[in-house]
Amino acid sequence: MNDKTRANLETISVATVSMQLLKRGIRNVSMVGPKPLNTPMMPIVGEAYTLRYIPMREDLSTPEMLAKPDFAPRVAIEEAPSGSILVIDGRGRPDIAVVGDILIERLKVRGVTGLVSDGGLRDFDECLAADFPVFAAGPAAPASVTGHAAGDLQTPISCGGVAVIPGDIIKADGDGVIVIPKALAEDIGRDGLEQERYERFAKLRVSQGRPVPGIYPPNDAAKAEYAAWLEAGEE
Amino acid sequence: MNDKTRANLETISVATVSMQLLKRGIRNVSMVGPKPLNTPMMPIVGEAYTLRYIPMREDLSTPEMLAKPDFAPRVAIEEAPSGSILVIDGRGRPDIAVVGDILIERLKVRGVTGLVSDGGLRDFDECLAADFPVFAAGPAAPASVTGHAAGDLQTPISCGGVAVIPGDIIKADGDGVIVIPKALAEDIGRDGLEQERYERFAKLRVSQGRPVPGIYPPNDAAKAEYAAWLEAGEE
Amino acid sequence: MNDKTRANLETISVATVSMQLLKRGIRNVSMVGPKPLNTPMMPIVGEAYTLRYIPMREDLSTPEMLAKPDFAPRVAIEEAPSGSILVIDGRGRPDIAVVGDILIERLKVRGVTGLVSDGGLRDFDECLAADFPVFAAGPAAPASVTGHAAGDLQTPISCGGVAVIPGDIIKADGDGVIVIPKALAEDIGRDGLEQERYERFAKLRVSQGRPVPGIYPPNDAAKAEYAAWLEAGEE
Amino acid sequence: MNDKTRANLETISVATVSMQLLKRGIRNVSMVGPKPLNTPMMPIVGEAYTLRYIPMREDLSTPEMLAKPDFAPRVAIEEAPSGSILVIDGRGRPDIAVVGDILIERLKVRGVTGLVSDGGLRDFDECLAADFPVFAAGPAAPASVTGHAAGDLQTPISCGGVAVIPGDIIKADGDGVIVIPKALAEDIGRDGLEQERYERFAKLRVSQGRPVPGIYPPNDAAKAEYAAWLEAGEE
Amino acid sequence: MNDKTRANLETISVATVSMQLLKRGIRNVSMVGPKPLNTPMMPIVGEAYTLRYIPMREDLSTPEMLAKPDFAPRVAIEEAPSGSILVIDGRGRPDIAVVGDILIERLKVRGVTGLVSDGGLRDFDECLAADFPVFAAGPAAPASVTGHAAGDLQTPISCGGVAVIPGDIIKADGDGVIVIPKALAEDIGRDGLEQERYERFAKLRVSQGRPVPGIYPPNDAAKAEYAAWLEAGEE
Amino acid sequence: MNDKTRANLETISVATVSMQLLKRGIRNVSMVGPKPLNTPMMPIVGEAYTLRYIPMREDLSTPEMLAKPDFAPRVAIEEAPSGSILVIDGRGRPDIAVVGDILIERLKVRGVTGLVSDGGLRDFDECLAADFPVFAAGPAAPASVTGHAAGDLQTPISCGGVAVIPGDIIKADGDGVIVIPKALAEDIGRDGLEQERYERFAKLRVSQGRPVPGIYPPNDAAKAEYAAWLEAGEE
Repeated sequence: MNDKTRANLETISVATVSMQLLKRGIRNVSMVGPKPLNTPMMPIVGEAYTLRYIPMREDLSTPEMLAKPDFAPRVAIEEAPSGSILVIDGRGRPDIAVVGDILIERLKVRGVTGLVSDGGLRDFDECLAADFPVFAAGPAAPASVTGHAAGDLQTPISCGGVAVIPGDIIKADGDGVIVIPKALAEDIGRDGLEQERYERFAKLRVSQGRPVPGIYPPNDAAKAEYAAWLEAGEE
Repeated sequence: MNDKTRANLETISVATVSMQLLKRGIRNVSMVGPKPLNTPMMPIVGEAYTLRYIPMREDLSTPEMLAKPDFAPRVAIEEAPSGSILVIDGRGRPDIAVVGDILIERLKVRGVTGLVSDGGLRDFDECLAADFPVFAAGPAAPASVTGHAAGDLQTPISCGGVAVIPGDIIKADGDGVIVIPKALAEDIGRDGLEQERYERFAKLRVSQGRPVPGIYPPNDAAKAEYAAWLEAGEE
Repeated sequence: MNDKTRANLETISVATVSMQLLKRGIRNVSMVGPKPLNTPMMPIVGEAYTLRYIPMREDLSTPEMLAKPDFAPRVAIEEAPSGSILVIDGRGRPDIAVVGDILIERLKVRGVTGLVSDGGLRDFDECLAADFPVFAAGPAAPASVTGHAAGDLQTPISCGGVAVIPGDIIKADGDGVIVIPKALAEDIGRDGLEQERYERFAKLRVSQGRPVPGIYPPNDAAKAEYAAWLEAGEE
Repeated sequence: MNDKTRANLETISVATVSMQLLKRGIRNVSMVGPKPLNTPMMPIVGEAYTLRYIPMREDLSTPEMLAKPDFAPRVAIEEAPSGSILVIDGRGRPDIAVVGDILIERLKVRGVTGLVSDGGLRDFDECLAADFPVFAAGPAAPASVTGHAAGDLQTPISCGGVAVIPGDIIKADGDGVIVIPKALAEDIGRDGLEQERYERFAKLRVSQGRPVPGIYPPNDAAKAEYAAWLEAGEE
Repeated sequence: MNDKTRANLETISVATVSMQLLKRGIRNVSMVGPKPLNTPMMPIVGEAYTLRYIPMREDLSTPEMLAKPDFAPRVAIEEAPSGSILVIDGRGRPDIAVVGDILIERLKVRGVTGLVSDGGLRDFDECLAADFPVFAAGPAAPASVTGHAAGDLQTPISCGGVAVIPGDIIKADGDGVIVIPKALAEDIGRDGLEQERYERFAKLRVSQGRPVPGIYPPNDAAKAEYAAWLEAGEE
Repeated sequence: MNDKTRANLETISVATVSMQLLKRGIRNVSMVGPKPLNTPMMPIVGEAYTLRYIPMREDLSTPEMLAKPDFAPRVAIEEAPSGSILVIDGRGRPDIAVVGDILIERLKVRGVTGLVSDGGLRDFDECLAADFPVFAAGPAAPASVTGHAAGDLQTPISCGGVAVIPGDIIKADGDGVIVIPKALAEDIGRDGLEQERYERFAKLRVSQGRPVPGIYPPNDAAKAEYAAWLEAGEE
């Protein structure tokens, strides 16, 4: 993702990205579960670094496991690159925490851009106090080993019901979290900017009393009117 | 719905309507899914204008469909009468938007009273910025054609798990959304007012230390005491 | 629960209790469904007084039932001891209310510590206005008899997916609600205090740039460092 | 339940009972989950003896509990009266067994009429080999203490999503399991017989080519024709 | 659907149709819920005639409604054309019947090809005794008005989670039920035949010990080998 | 797994394994979803070879992917060792097939012991005709790429809600599928044999009229009686 693409994707909304992906035939990319939890909301864009859990099994999921040097969920906290977004497959379980405030603190210190998960956060208020962007299911007291066992790092995962491949672009704002296949990021950013420019025009006209049909989406007359509006520099 | 009934239904709460309907043997009328989303909450009463979606199918659910003049979801935006409530069967899918900010703007301009749906809203913050009453599932980035196909207009629908017949009375407040069968609206409004008057009396007594049994619901002694209280004009 | 245990349990968090129970092999104690609903949040600790509902049946679930002197849900409101927490098995139905504002008022007058349920609250805003701690599923207009029938009082119940035995200790805060088996309360309180002391040390070090492995959970070096930190009175 | 009512209820089908209850305003009585498991199917009628489970908790749900003399699930096996139907609230969990083949054997030896549960059966093939009527969710290897803890006996329960009060009449056949409130059993049996007699007439006519409207449900002409048919002894 | 297309679609399997539709970018067409219920299984192909239910409401869903001449579910039984398949939106509720044995008898007499629904069947054994093809959720005692209210006829519906437009082609066999958009039926039938011919070749080779890669799907060598096999008339 | 352990595990039932694991504190090992599909049932024991799917994404899940030499689901078919059990994480989706008849044929030819998945099978009847042991969710027409994308091979997975580590022992019979952590297999096999021997004794006594308490689980008297019974060679 080059700087221009990053800037474009930071400018446009998740809703716009969703429409651009749909226009390319890609529907199954919006996560169900992760919600914007910071106040005020903290939008993020970045490359996915993935962590995966599997179901709890009593012999695999003990507090002692947390101290093992190769315990994937702890390795992830140290290895997710600065600027990346840590995406955790929390198995769609809002009632089990995938991290707590100490790990959030560490992610922040290390320069990670944000956290996305369909799991919960423990020590929820302290997590939010860190001013670190979190898109997750909400508060949940039980530590990960209460309900999960370690899976692995940097493999294809499911999060919020959609596929995430390491390196995919994650974009999150008040409408939720979406995954942009890496190969499409540049096009989505460019065309999304233009989509939003037109939508500002359309919304202006609608607020002035214009019916929606013909203007959104635009027919030929609306396209001409929009071109004139752009030309006139009224934007 | 005459003016008096409307005024009564605006005064009483959804909880009161629920009890009045239960007293008439009607239980399955409270929607599950739609939540009050405005801050502060904006209660509404009005007649239902209905729109229905069916499941997405790739040949039926494309961005191009949005431009077709008979695409029901767009027709609904132009046809829902001023003063009505647009009720959208979003198939219980909080993760798919049924409208976004441009359509909300149009509904507001046209004088529609409010929107009720078990689906989501895209461009969520802009939707709320319109100060237009919305009772829906919350934010969702994907446009309707990402997960739905067009159904039809002004037919009986399911919304939030309950039946809505065009013309039914919709009442929504902080407790949620309830459907009042049209034929019952007058009685519900009248008897609900009286129910709430008694409950103010009962709550006053309870706050003064009276046990709940006997006073809520009232036995004969409590009824007499209430009559005296009304007589005395202490309300 | 003696005063010291109570004080300890009031000091520590639900997340800490969860970890202490996990260390004793007990995982299935965190409720799914009840959420902290007061603003600001009102944490509670107390002994459980239990009430149970069963599914609605039209002959068992009528408004008239509310007036019967042995109707368990109303008896509970009068019998839950001062200082106890009323825990209501709402059958995991967020859409049916287990109490409304008048009953909340009565619980408050009677000195009950708080309410926990996986069901909803009707007259939601008035419930919150009472400044009485409620951990429940959120607003729901339908009264209990719309969707439930009376079960019984002070028997083992399910709430939020976990077992609650009358007399168990309930602890609730911003992370949710947890059940502490009575026999374990003293140990959990004592060891939880120490756990949180260590975690303050660990978080301090992490905020200073220390990697998580080795310090959380602590290896021998970290334990020694922590002992010195305690000794030095830096806490 | 007198002998005549029992005979009537044995003759009519669960579908007929369902319609008769609906005619009396009672809808929520058909269980979801329990299925007829014997081959050939073994229909049953009898009074409910109830057993209830609550969620597993590791300190309450151990193999050792099975040996305690007051462990309710084992007491139930010895106490359910001959001729009764043991109805077990298995918490809607098809994946946890509520009984296995040894307990089924004991129920059969003791003369219990049958077993109904929304939970599973372990040693499934051996259970079926006993030729004892079971209406449950299907096979499930884990013993009850793997996923449940003991609740209590002969209290109101939920089974398959509906209320069961001890002493209610249970009727089960190939269409599933239904609960008949005790007070209604006699009327349901009597009117159900007549309903089925008419339906045999209606089906005969339909098989002869008659359209459904007018004959099912019957209009006045069809009622007269039916009366003549009865008179003629063609049944 | 001309005779050749019908013959082709009768020859190929639902699994083949699913792959042909996927190759055209159409994924969301296989129903979840309807199962083949006849023994032996009775495959069907035909045009969809649709019926829709909405949620039960006590004032709309009474036994008396069944006698009203415009009650859509009964009209459907008389109006579904001979040779069509009656597809009923049972709202994904396996526990509520959409038809019983008398209506099945009438559908058979009238020459309807079969019934598809995500709802249940009452008088289940009698339904099966009619030797009329049914793909539905299984047995369910409660009549439709116990849990549904009438929707309408011949409108776009949801069934088993997928869209069905009146006139779409329904194909059902042991793998379940699939919807073929009308415009694609001819192509699907033609290409599906060829797909199955190749798969017979591939399976033969695999049964002779050939590894799957290269032969399924075929590389160029396998295609050539297949062409020779066809040429040689070994099929 | 040595020959004796294998023999023991083949002799005992899944229900017995479940109890033996529970006695060691391990509860979360029984799969929910996979069912015995062969008639007659074909029990299996073997080491797990794992395959994982992630959610479908339109750019990752195309028919063309099936031809890529590194497409994990096809590699698995060629790489799962003779004598192993292929365990496929089908994401708990019974409506999407994880394999069809051609791949089943190949697994059989290669000497794989059986297939376990929480997903479905396409060409269901042909799959069963192969007489190859399958424990899966049932028939499902859509090919894997209709609803899944490729994950990876031989990593820890979730299947039927439980953790499976490559090399874990899988045991499946009429009660379902259970996972035995490799380190425990020997002990489980040995102690399970003894458990079943006692249960034969207990069931014999129960069939002779003995109450369950005291004998199952056994008190000291029952243990002595059992010892005598063994001694006497009455087994």
